[in-house]
Amino acid sequence: MAKNKLNKVSIVMGSQSDYKTMTFCQNILKKLNIKFETKIISAHRTPKRMYEFAINAEKNGIAVIIAGAGGSAHLPGMISALTSLPVLGVPIESKKLKGLDSLLSIAQMPKGIPVGTLAIGEDGAINAALLAASIIGLSDLTVKRKLNQFRLNQSKSVKKKPK
Amino acid sequence: MAKNKLNKVSIVMGSQSDYKTMTFCQNILKKLNIKFETKIISAHRTPKRMYEFAINAEKNGIAVIIAGAGGSAHLPGMISALTSLPVLGVPIESKKLKGLDSLLSIAQMPKGIPVGTLAIGEDGAINAALLAASIIGLSDLTVKRKLNQFRLNQSKSVKKKPK
Amino acid sequence: MAKNKLNKVSIVMGSQSDYKTMTFCQNILKKLNIKFETKIISAHRTPKRMYEFAINAEKNGIAVIIAGAGGSAHLPGMISALTSLPVLGVPIESKKLKGLDSLLSIAQMPKGIPVGTLAIGEDGAINAALLAASIIGLSDLTVKRKLNQFRLNQSKSVKKKPK
Amino acid sequence: MAKNKLNKVSIVMGSQSDYKTMTFCQNILKKLNIKFETKIISAHRTPKRMYEFAINAEKNGIAVIIAGAGGSAHLPGMISALTSLPVLGVPIESKKLKGLDSLLSIAQMPKGIPVGTLAIGEDGAINAALLAASIIGLSDLTVKRKLNQFRLNQSKSVKKKPK
Amino acid sequence: MAKNKLNKVSIVMGSQSDYKTMTFCQNILKKLNIKFETKIISAHRTPKRMYEFAINAEKNGIAVIIAGAGGSAHLPGMISALTSLPVLGVPIESKKLKGLDSLLSIAQMPKGIPVGTLAIGEDGAINAALLAASIIGLSDLTVKRKLNQFRLNQSKSVKKKPK
Amino acid sequence: MAKNKLNKVSIVMGSQSDYKTMTFCQNILKKLNIKFETKIISAHRTPKRMYEFAINAEKNGIAVIIAGAGGSAHLPGMISALTSLPVLGVPIESKKLKGLDSLLSIAQMPKGIPVGTLAIGEDGAINAALLAASIIGLSDLTVKRKLNQFRLNQSKSVKKKPK
Amino acid sequence: MAKNKLNKVSIVMGSQSDYKTMTFCQNILKKLNIKFETKIISAHRTPKRMYEFAINAEKNGIAVIIAGAGGSAHLPGMISALTSLPVLGVPIESKKLKGLDSLLSIAQMPKGIPVGTLAIGEDGAINAALLAASIIGLSDLTVKRKLNQFRLNQSKSVKKKPK
Amino acid sequence: MAKNKLNKVSIVMGSQSDYKTMTFCQNILKKLNIKFETKIISAHRTPKRMYEFAINAEKNGIAVIIAGAGGSAHLPGMISALTSLPVLGVPIESKKLKGLDSLLSIAQMPKGIPVGTLAIGEDGAINAALLAASIIGLSDLTVKRKLNQFRLNQSKSVKKKPK
Repeated sequence: MAKNKLNKVSIVMGSQSDYKTMTFCQNILKKLNIKFETKIISAHRTPKRMYEFAINAEKNGIAVIIAGAGGSAHLPGMISALTSLPVLGVPIESKKLKGLDSLLSIAQMPKGIPVGTLAIGEDGAINAALLAASIIGLSDLTVKRKLNQFRLNQSKSVKKKPK
Repeated sequence: MAKNKLNKVSIVMGSQSDYKTMTFCQNILKKLNIKFETKIISAHRTPKRMYEFAINAEKNGIAVIIAGAGGSAHLPGMISALTSLPVLGVPIESKKLKGLDSLLSIAQMPKGIPVGTLAIGEDGAINAALLAASIIGLSDLTVKRKLNQFRLNQSKSVKKKPK
Repeated sequence: MAKNKLNKVSIVMGSQSDYKTMTFCQNILKKLNIKFETKIISAHRTPKRMYEFAINAEKNGIAVIIAGAGGSAHLPGMISALTSLPVLGVPIESKKLKGLDSLLSIAQMPKGIPVGTLAIGEDGAINAALLAASIIGLSDLTVKRKLNQFRLNQSKSVKKKPK
Repeated sequence: MAKNKLNKVSIVMGSQSDYKTMTFCQNILKKLNIKFETKIISAHRTPKRMYEFAINAEKNGIAVIIAGAGGSAHLPGMISALTSLPVLGVPIESKKLKGLDSLLSIAQMPKGIPVGTLAIGEDGAINAALLAASIIGLSDLTVKRKLNQFRLNQSKSVKKKPK
Repeated sequence: MAKNKLNKVSIVMGSQSDYKTMTFCQNILKKLNIKFETKIISAHRTPKRMYEFAINAEKNGIAVIIAGAGGSAHLPGMISALTSLPVLGVPIESKKLKGLDSLLSIAQMPKGIPVGTLAIGEDGAINAALLAASIIGLSDLTVKRKLNQFRLNQSKSVKKKPK
Repeated sequence: MAKNKLNKVSIVMGSQSDYKTMTFCQNILKKLNIKFETKIISAHRTPKRMYEFAINAEKNGIAVIIAGAGGSAHLPGMISALTSLPVLGVPIESKKLKGLDSLLSIAQMPKGIPVGTLAIGEDGAINAALLAASIIGLSDLTVKRKLNQFRLNQSKSVKKKPK
Repeated sequence: MAKNKLNKVSIVMGSQSDYKTMTFCQNILKKLNIKFETKIISAHRTPKRMYEFAINAEKNGIAVIIAGAGGSAHLPGMISALTSLPVLGVPIESKKLKGLDSLLSIAQMPKGIPVGTLAIGEDGAINAALLAASIIGLSDLTVKRKLNQFRLNQSKSVKKKPK
Repeated sequence: MAKNKLNKVSIVMGSQSDYKTMTFCQNILKKLNIKFETKIISAHRTPKRMYEFAINAEKNGIAVIIAGAGGSAHLPGMISALTSLPVLGVPIESKKLKGLDSLLSIAQMPKGIPVGTLAIGEDGAINAALLAASIIGLSDLTVKRKLNQFRLNQSKSVKKKPK
């Protein structure tokens, strides 16, 4: 493990239909100049692909894994079971229960295997990228500065009055 | 695959603490003279053990897998992802949310990978054994007769009046 | 009971409005070349029809019953009360509570009468068919091979990257 | 149907364990001098007993049926499916989900088959008896007067100040 | 109180916006030739009107009161507090929480003051009318016969197969 | 209305069993030297007492009404319907659903009749007293100073480290 | 603190998107001739602006603060932490969970820091204004009279019959 | 910012009563030889202390902040609003709603301000420590090795069979 190689984020998701949500994640990473890859990996339909991905993530230079999944959302937890890299989970809004099932499936992990869970949907996808940035920023000053600038602009962009 | 070998049930659970619930499952299988094995397999803490178990279940003569898990309960769904044997899921009562998280994590599986979900807790453990019996009974007349007798006795045992 | 006759699936549902969901179930069974019938049987509006159906299912060559119902969804549980065949329940999305009521009404069966519950809606309908296939596949090698091929194709069809 | 015979309440429940709750129902009926019977009838474990009970209730002089059930609580709805007598449902507190499953299973009946649902647990059992009294009281002045007296006493018994 | 006058149903609701749901209730009563009145009575905005209505209902020949209300739905419970006539509650679908708040506000009445609660929305409105019919039918053979015929037709109208 | 008389808080609750929770409310008012009265008023069992209380509250010198109620909690909303004084609602923990029903019954008031809702249980009872103090403090400098001192002490009492 | 200056309401909200809901609040205050200001203050994106606002609210003549926020809704509680003025919270409907998260985030405040919570969405926004009016009306007779007139008109405007 | 100083974890919690849960977090950090501090910081009762803590965390050598809070749990989100360090949130089990309120208050953060949320209660506290370790391990090989060893031991400690 060479720490200077660990500066990339891997965005993975269970299916094509999750991509609409996870593009919000990509957009933030792009703005912050953070390297990332985007993959479809289904815990359920491609368990072997998931296995290969997770055990090789570190040697492939991945620092943080962001996994989006809906319903019985097993992807973030299972990846975390297979790597000791930080794993962030984005509960995708499910068709029937609005993502409450996704949220509980991701957040309620048993002790031993952590997943940092964000909000359901787009807001969660955006915040997963920002949390990844804050993690990478701990050892990468360029990312840190970009993030701080983003946060500053965000504060400034809040209007004083609604209209 | 030799069908006459597929007559065993495998009861698996995520941790020792789930055993209190899953013994109810064992007891029914014993009463019905169905062969079974009982294992601790954690999707999260022993993902490789789970992988080995699931891909070898069929060749080990397993007909039906009953998996009990709580909280972000990934075990039943992940096993189903790795085998085409019938997988039944028992949501274990969780410490905080009473098993609602377990139920949603097991029941809300995406299309393609089925888990037959039973009720939260002991009732679900019992019913998983009975559903396994009804499945095995489709091709094993002895089990079928045992199950029918069990069901008959069950009906008869219902008192006419409460006291 | 002659086991070689028990190779048919019966898809039943509480009303015409459930059919939109249950066609997803039919489609999978067709793809897997599994014989099936489709009926409207309302536990509430046609309790006698349900009674007749359930007690005669086995002698009519039914191996697995898939019952879809919404709201106070009593159909799967009541059928299971009247037969020892495996019964799978599909919670139909309800108009107001999005199927949470359907899910709890089907999944929370008391000990003694099992229903293997699938996810709310279309995904559950698809998975009920796949679980039925895995059950029938235990004693029918043709179905087993079809199912394994379906699962293989399903895995292969998962794209590597979203777009 | 001879209306003067229809003045009895039938209290039915799914199992012995529900009796602790349903005795509260009995106690009110006793206080109001309303005739009643108490039976264990399980929709799931004794479906034929339920069937016989429901279709014969009216000719047995039953005016109102009060059915208590927990979890996937099918008893009130199924009885209502088999008779046009008024059926009141008492959701019994379930072991895991505190009766939320019982409440939804009883209250969310589809159009066509009504169940008047009361609160979860003892309060619901008491109120089922009072609602039965108000129904019987429509054509039985003695019951009506008893009920009015009960209600008056109830109001008077409310202390002005807590201590 | 002259019992032969108590054969009318009063449908009350909290606001004009509830009427869309409660017309389903009216339609059933019309079909069954049951006399009814329809009023807007808001527990919150017209508490005095509610008070007057409830304490005079019986002398105005009302046998059963059906009250529809949404959100913090207090109308059915408050009317029941003011009369010993049978009161049925229809939880109107609320704008945000889909009627779960309405259902709990109506169903979870404390002991002493009963409300027979039906399902959320149109199905509940229909079933409130049918339950009222079954109550009135206890002492009115014409209504009883109409109701039995309705139930019979309902059963017959259920198609054998979906399309 | 003479504003200098409106400086008293009225704590009302549906039953004796709510008092355990509402004493927390009393204790805060005592500490802040705010005049108060405590009464049992049941919206359901004593609707006339409630009516009399609410329409006379203002002329009796009440400035703020704090109403605690559980389950189908109608007391705060109904009092607010009968007075234009500020009404604060404390959802009492219910026996089965832990106060979620109480919270929704109190908070989800329709437009036109406001209830300021606090948290479920003791914390809510305490905060109702503090909110009443902040309201009375707007025109009563002594109360304002007492409240500010209470808040200051509260901040100071928070230890720096847990033990 | 000069009490005659404390007669203004401050409406604050977390973002522009909350304004659609909070205009309902403004409209009521306008009708009642109550002075108000409207600001965007995000607890999360502009914590310093929130801090400055809250600690200066009283000296700026604010009597009541109405804060609208959605999801992890921290604005009302955090403002209450920084001032002893009465703070009312309006849970904004959230995109995924319909405002249930907003409601719990605002209502379930720990003891010591009160927020008077209103209903989710527009109804809550309207009622926040009315509760503010009832608070200000305690020491401002003009507002009190306006509010009483508003309430009277509201009662009168309720039609007797739906159409 | 000197990255080699950012290797400490700060565990903060809203009150003494949260400490029982958060000691599980401490224990893991101790096992992994990670430096940490433990503080009581209440977003509500000590907002200024929180403000000072958050804006100075980075210069005090903190790499990751773990914040535990219950009910309307605002601490993790507010700290994240004041720093761009990674903030992890542990929902403490609340007295009434079992931590569902805590979970939603922490997880459902709006876009822009991320909190990595763990499970409710002890499991979440343990996992927050492990996630902090995986974050610090990205740039600290000693921590990484300790964490990997911990994970290995954890897998090995899972018994093969329950007893």
